[in-house]
Amino acid sequence: MKAAGVVVEYNPFHNGHLYHLNATREMSQADVVIAVMSGNFLQRGEPALVSKWARTKMALMNGADLVFELPYQFSTQKAEVFANGAIKILDAVGCSTLCFGSESGDAESFTATVNFLEQRRTIYDSLIRNHIKTGVSYPKAASLALDELKAPHGTISLSEPNNILGYHYVKSIQSLGSKIEPLTVKRKSANYHDEDFASSTIASATSIRKSLFTRSGGLDSIKQYIPDGTMQSLEEYLADFLQFHSWDMYWPFLKYRLIQSSPDELNSIYEAEEGLEKRLAAVALKAESFFEFMEAVKTKRYTWTRIQRLCTHILVNAKKEEMPNTEDSPEYMRLLGMSRLGKLYLNRNKGHFTLPVVSKLSAFSGIGIELDKRASYIYALGLAGSKSQKLLEMEYSQPPLFIEKR
Amino acid sequence: MKAAGVVVEYNPFHNGHLYHLNATREMSQADVVIAVMSGNFLQRGEPALVSKWARTKMALMNGADLVFELPYQFSTQKAEVFANGAIKILDAVGCSTLCFGSESGDAESFTATVNFLEQRRTIYDSLIRNHIKTGVSYPKAASLALDELKAPHGTISLSEPNNILGYHYVKSIQSLGSKIEPLTVKRKSANYHDEDFASSTIASATSIRKSLFTRSGGLDSIKQYIPDGTMQSLEEYLADFLQFHSWDMYWPFLKYRLIQSSPDELNSIYEAEEGLEKRLAAVALKAESFFEFMEAVKTKRYTWTRIQRLCTHILVNAKKEEMPNTEDSPEYMRLLGMSRLGKLYLNRNKGHFTLPVVSKLSAFSGIGIELDKRASYIYALGLAGSKSQKLLEMEYSQPPLFIEKR
Repeated sequence: MKAAGVVVEYNPFHNGHLYHLNATREMSQADVVIAVMSGNFLQRGEPALVSKWARTKMALMNGADLVFELPYQFSTQKAEVFANGAIKILDAVGCSTLCFGSESGDAESFTATVNFLEQRRTIYDSLIRNHIKTGVSYPKAASLALDELKAPHGTISLSEPNNILGYHYVKSIQSLGSKIEPLTVKRKSANYHDEDFASSTIASATSIRKSLFTRSGGLDSIKQYIPDGTMQSLEEYLADFLQFHSWDMYWPFLKYRLIQSSPDELNSIYEAEEGLEKRLAAVALKAESFFEFMEAVKTKRYTWTRIQRLCTHILVNAKKEEMPNTEDSPEYMRLLGMSRLGKLYLNRNKGHFTLPVVSKLSAFSGIGIELDKRASYIYALGLAGSKSQKLLEMEYSQPPLFIEKR
Repeated sequence: MKAAGVVVEYNPFHNGHLYHLNATREMSQADVVIAVMSGNFLQRGEPALVSKWARTKMALMNGADLVFELPYQFSTQKAEVFANGAIKILDAVGCSTLCFGSESGDAESFTATVNFLEQRRTIYDSLIRNHIKTGVSYPKAASLALDELKAPHGTISLSEPNNILGYHYVKSIQSLGSKIEPLTVKRKSANYHDEDFASSTIASATSIRKSLFTRSGGLDSIKQYIPDGTMQSLEEYLADFLQFHSWDMYWPFLKYRLIQSSPDELNSIYEAEEGLEKRLAAVALKAESFFEFMEAVKTKRYTWTRIQRLCTHILVNAKKEEMPNTEDSPEYMRLLGMSRLGKLYLNRNKGHFTLPVVSKLSAFSGIGIELDKRASYIYALGLAGSKSQKLLEMEYSQPPLFIEKR
């Protein structure tokens, strides 16, 4: 059986994701599609809209056959570490292709860019450092440095978020010496950061979330952009837990923790550096909402995303020593769900998997899984009273989901 | 001008307190009454029902002339340390008498008991240790040890909470070599721990709080037990902040912190010992309310109060190294409010005060005041949204209250 891999967050699953899954199956000619999906906290340093279980269900109903959780150690990271963790898992489960969405749409241009920059590693890094000294963010500096190197035709632009991720997927595949073949699907209609709807059926997850949280919006406003399965999952989530998750929900805890921590404790948090954490603590004292807080702390140097990631680590108490180095591998792969075909693939191939599969949280131990437990419990605490307890208990009792047919 | 001191919490101020203040003035023949009052968190490890400002107002309207805050370092402590902090402040401001409420009502019997036990210190301490080994709490062990020593007639029973406090006041006065003369007023009608009303005008603060939080209770149910000034203050508090404070309000933060902390962090908290903190963390994961949590963790060895104090320290992140030794002195005295007479006393005598008076939080620095700031900010976080921010800002901008006349 041939497996194609995808790296996803499904926050929430929408028509663009469905298009990507279908294209993956078609382009790769694979029998099964394996998704590595961020758990409770996502790459941009945000809590997921709904639990990993609800998002796993959306994935399975729409074409994914196996869903593994990308551990907190990798899901809440800059592109390089995020990509490395995801690729290590897809390689460990024997995927022969990876199919990612990108602004470019041409897989060879990613390989060409990786090769071009690898040959110029030293100068590229020093150009990036020079730009950072002028006060710009890392992603901006990396993109400017690439421009200066006058990359030839046939390389990609690194100013687009999905191109950056794709670049790191391909780079990880190369460093790992993996046999995974990278494929890419050009994103349709919507750009990653779009906040408004621009097409009648395809919208970015960002614009969908924005509409969900708007007073005049809600579920009806996003209906045309999501498959039926997503709508059903979101409705069930509201019925079960009354709310979707957002930073607003965790703001009281973040503020509390920023006020309560000693400077040493804050400094021990992953990505706390250069006194940024002290500024966060001082601003928190005066801010009434998460948005007000973020507006007051962001700068040209520290992007919204960079600060949100630090806030996530403060919320979860993720220490420097608990987080991986760029090249580290996940310790385990938590299986979140499977289709009938996925189960078959698992039974046939798991003997060759190069990382342990975990179905129950209590069945494994280690720094990474402890962090995942903590992150899920804290994710659950955002809900009120008994709903919080209900989600928290799901975290340690929920076996992988199984969908017989779609 | 002659000053009498009282040590209070006023949670809330009731008719029994009014009786005590009037008796203090009468017995001592003092010109002014100086109160040392616990700040946001109280001796039994609880958040105060209303802010220190609201309680200061109650005190001033009912006969206190100066109100100083007993810092967090001393207010959240077992009787010995609590008493030591309070007496050091009353001594520093030049009180010539202390008047405390007690079950005994006879000041000489307190002095007799202190003398009796000081002469038997070694054997008394070893008897206490033996009782603790059988699994009973410290207060229980101390009371049993005193019984075994067959204290003569004219000594007090150490099984009553106000007698224990009084004993430690008198002991502190002696160790300090202070000239303060101890006086005591026998408590009327209500016992400290009474949960139900037993008289038509005097009720314990415990029973008053219980009735306030009962669905059928509320402000009307306690009217007969509190002076008009208290009623007015409580009504204003509800109008301004919508809620009274209780542990329920802080439970989400405590639960979050217990789940989020590393074992080392929990162990660094004051009074965390013998793995008790690990048990709290494990139980918190499964408890939906503070009451459910407390019921599950309390034992014969660890009283409700002992555990509540530890919970307060965990909530506030009060570390072992931030808390005082038994004999330590407060670093400063925060002035919360004054009457016209109190102001006169202050102006005439502050040159002789042996500890610095602080009127603005920003005017002083040190471990003790940092802890007080943190405790007040966290106390404010219990309220919702803008109310929380309002109370938090009062903490660093509110000057001492002044009441021209009552």
